[in-house]
Amino acid sequence: MSAVALDAFVHDLATRSGEAILPFFRTAIGVEDKGRRKGQSFDPVTEADRAAEQVMRRMITTTFPEHGIIGEEFGNERRDADYVWALDPIDGTKSFISGMPAWGTLIGLLKQGAPVYGMMHQPFIGERFFGDGGSAHYLGPAGKRRLLTRDCGRLEDAILFTTSPLLMNAADRTLFQSVERDVRLSRYGGDCYAYCMVAAGLVDLVIETGLQDHDIVALVPVIEGAGGIVTNWEGGSPVAGGRVVAAGSKAVHEQALKRLNP
Amino acid sequence: MSAVALDAFVHDLATRSGEAILPFFRTAIGVEDKGRRKGQSFDPVTEADRAAEQVMRRMITTTFPEHGIIGEEFGNERRDADYVWALDPIDGTKSFISGMPAWGTLIGLLKQGAPVYGMMHQPFIGERFFGDGGSAHYLGPAGKRRLLTRDCGRLEDAILFTTSPLLMNAADRTLFQSVERDVRLSRYGGDCYAYCMVAAGLVDLVIETGLQDHDIVALVPVIEGAGGIVTNWEGGSPVAGGRVVAAGSKAVHEQALKRLNP
Repeated sequence: MSAVALDAFVHDLATRSGEAILPFFRTAIGVEDKGRRKGQSFDPVTEADRAAEQVMRRMITTTFPEHGIIGEEFGNERRDADYVWALDPIDGTKSFISGMPAWGTLIGLLKQGAPVYGMMHQPFIGERFFGDGGSAHYLGPAGKRRLLTRDCGRLEDAILFTTSPLLMNAADRTLFQSVERDVRLSRYGGDCYAYCMVAAGLVDLVIETGLQDHDIVALVPVIEGAGGIVTNWEGGSPVAGGRVVAAGSKAVHEQALKRLNP
Repeated sequence: MSAVALDAFVHDLATRSGEAILPFFRTAIGVEDKGRRKGQSFDPVTEADRAAEQVMRRMITTTFPEHGIIGEEFGNERRDADYVWALDPIDGTKSFISGMPAWGTLIGLLKQGAPVYGMMHQPFIGERFFGDGGSAHYLGPAGKRRLLTRDCGRLEDAILFTTSPLLMNAADRTLFQSVERDVRLSRYGGDCYAYCMVAAGLVDLVIETGLQDHDIVALVPVIEGAGGIVTNWEGGSPVAGGRVVAAGSKAVHEQALKRLNP
């Protein structure tokens, strides 16, 4: 698979999944409450989520029958294949059901366990953030351009995002707050958008916990391609999800890790 | 001024202010830290904010020289005129500087102190929410349609938004949390978008404190035009800002007010 063919295929996945999702955005749809069924916190699943994942799975299975798939809605297939796709049709389902625009479709590709390509697509706004670890690009209302992180130098000048501190356990929240109390600006919400804004050089730091692999795999080649760093809280590979920290520069990443591992 | 002429003029204000803002969105611009200068919390002012307000003020002064203006950036003029415009070029400046899409331009018109027309415009996404208290409409990527709130019936089924509980004083935060702990879903962030999602029937409740008049005037005719209710925490007019509660239905509004006034 050439880089050009891969790029074109992922853009196709984005286009087709976007077409499956948009009819459901900001309309009255049945929201099945997956979280409550399991006795956990609120975690809605929409029909859009399922429709989009089915479209993408069909395209992948038809074009690359030997590839594996990790999906949010329909589980894993051939998890031990050389190439494995990680799909999250709607990252930010709570924004989605509230009509807010900060959600996106995550499409990632692992080669022997390492992320080699990723895209975040927001079909309502019509923008795509994508990268292969070596470089990263943006295509949307503001045109096409290269994505580059920034180095704000120190936590005191950093803009920090997390989806919600309420999603963290008490110990992790305390560690998170040891970073949060010193940053220039701390914002909640954002999901996949916050990571893309790190790649775009507008946000300096994202710190989260409890991520699934399909939440982060697609974002790694975008952030790294833009010059940023993304690891787990221990500084290792973030590919399995869990506790993740993404930063625009080595300096800010190191300062955050130090506080998260006191 | 006919209703049609007023509608056309506000759409013009939106188009022209959007043109002034967009060149500054997601680009490296000087962020002047108004808040720190005053020794308060972070409250950035962007060049976009100023450019857009200047454009709108010029248009209003040329077309309606007798009208007053309340503006976020350049203060008030003819505050005692029959017609007074309330302008907030970028509501959600923290989202704006972070590259996130949940910000908008607020354009409101007061007649003898009562809001008679309002619009929220998001020029990057290209969508407008507008109303005159009697009806409200949406124009954007999803086409043109009427805005209608929903009645979820009770707090336990409500989606609640607030920009951030950290913006509240301790007493208000405790009251807010007495509502928050029982809702179906509580989300932070959103600014003007949260109110528009109440108008669109996707969010049930917004509770905030510390609003300025230009933060809320434009949103009142949109929410009321869509069938919703917006007051201060005491149940009176929200036009002066301060502590505001907006709801999709009378039932949910009443339940929220009861907890906010124990």
